[in-house]
Amino acid sequence: GVRVTREPGGTTLGSSLRTLLLQVRNPPIVSTAELLLYAADRAQHIEEVIEPALGAGLAVLCDRYIDATLAYQGFGRGLGIERILALHREPPLSRRPRRTLLLDIPVGEALERARQRNFAHRGGTDEGRFEAETDLFHERVRQGYLKLAALEPLRIRVIDARGSEEAVARRIYSAVADLFPTAGIR
Amino acid sequence: GVRVTREPGGTTLGSSLRTLLLQVRNPPIVSTAELLLYAADRAQHIEEVIEPALGAGLAVLCDRYIDATLAYQGFGRGLGIERILALHREPPLSRRPRRTLLLDIPVGEALERARQRNFAHRGGTDEGRFEAETDLFHERVRQGYLKLAALEPLRIRVIDARGSEEAVARRIYSAVADLFPTAGIR
Repeated sequence: GVRVTREPGGTTLGSSLRTLLLQVRNPPIVSTAELLLYAADRAQHIEEVIEPALGAGLAVLCDRYIDATLAYQGFGRGLGIERILALHREPPLSRRPRRTLLLDIPVGEALERARQRNFAHRGGTDEGRFEAETDLFHERVRQGYLKLAALEPLRIRVIDARGSEEAVARRIYSAVADLFPTAGIR
Repeated sequence: GVRVTREPGGTTLGSSLRTLLLQVRNPPIVSTAELLLYAADRAQHIEEVIEPALGAGLAVLCDRYIDATLAYQGFGRGLGIERILALHREPPLSRRPRRTLLLDIPVGEALERARQRNFAHRGGTDEGRFEAETDLFHERVRQGYLKLAALEPLRIRVIDARGSEEAVARRIYSAVADLFPTAGIR
């Protein structure tokens, strides 16, 4: 079985933090506080959702994780990755994934998709906080993700996210097939 | 001039976090997440309130600070002080106070005072989260505070908080008089 979950928001604390991150705007949340709020959400999510699921023998598929913090806060906000890695050295935050899929797409195309998605689903999304950022910010985030993938090519697989959903799904299947040898994934 | 402030809650983010800490109960917030939420509040408070006040030449008097996290989360929750100190090594969290006053009172008397205060001011208080803890927890917190004071006797002054408000105020004045040589504090 597979447990599908996401950050932030997979717990009661997480959905409260999601709301708070969207509502506190003026004065804005400072970069260090933002980093710590995402880390708090993650600690709760790991203890409350991920560890119990792993303990029950499930595979866990999580939308965003530590690499997202490294890319957005470390590279995007310029906090650097050393202090973020230090923050994730003790349990529960020391839990690492076996495989990470980086769905990569040029910044311009990604923002166009996000605009269409927001048009379809009105209302605040967590992603909305970052869509207001400059193209330069998004380019730093993308290049940050690609650097992380270059450092750990066995764990982080870069998936070309352009093209149809079907085509992207096929690329994803082949990037995880070795983890599920008996599932008959082609 | 003096800027009087407090943790958590001296900022918009802080008062949202205060509410969140009181409301998220079931499942409870895990210890690491609690630690990170207090640190996030502190980072925002330092950048938004404390640094601007210091920059304007004011003295800042803050109710609770890093030592409270060391005592409650480090000793009380048993997270240990090393990782908490590591969390406070980079700006803005690396800001340290010149003087810290530890108002010390036996656990039983402190809880009795808290009960009377809550009777007078109904409704949730941040302190309320900790009042529900066992006497053993409070004893660990108190002994933790006293250990911190023993490690840094020049910065942390232990004030006997028993007796009348007037008597305690006199003890406080004499513990800070050297910081305000021209204020004529007796």
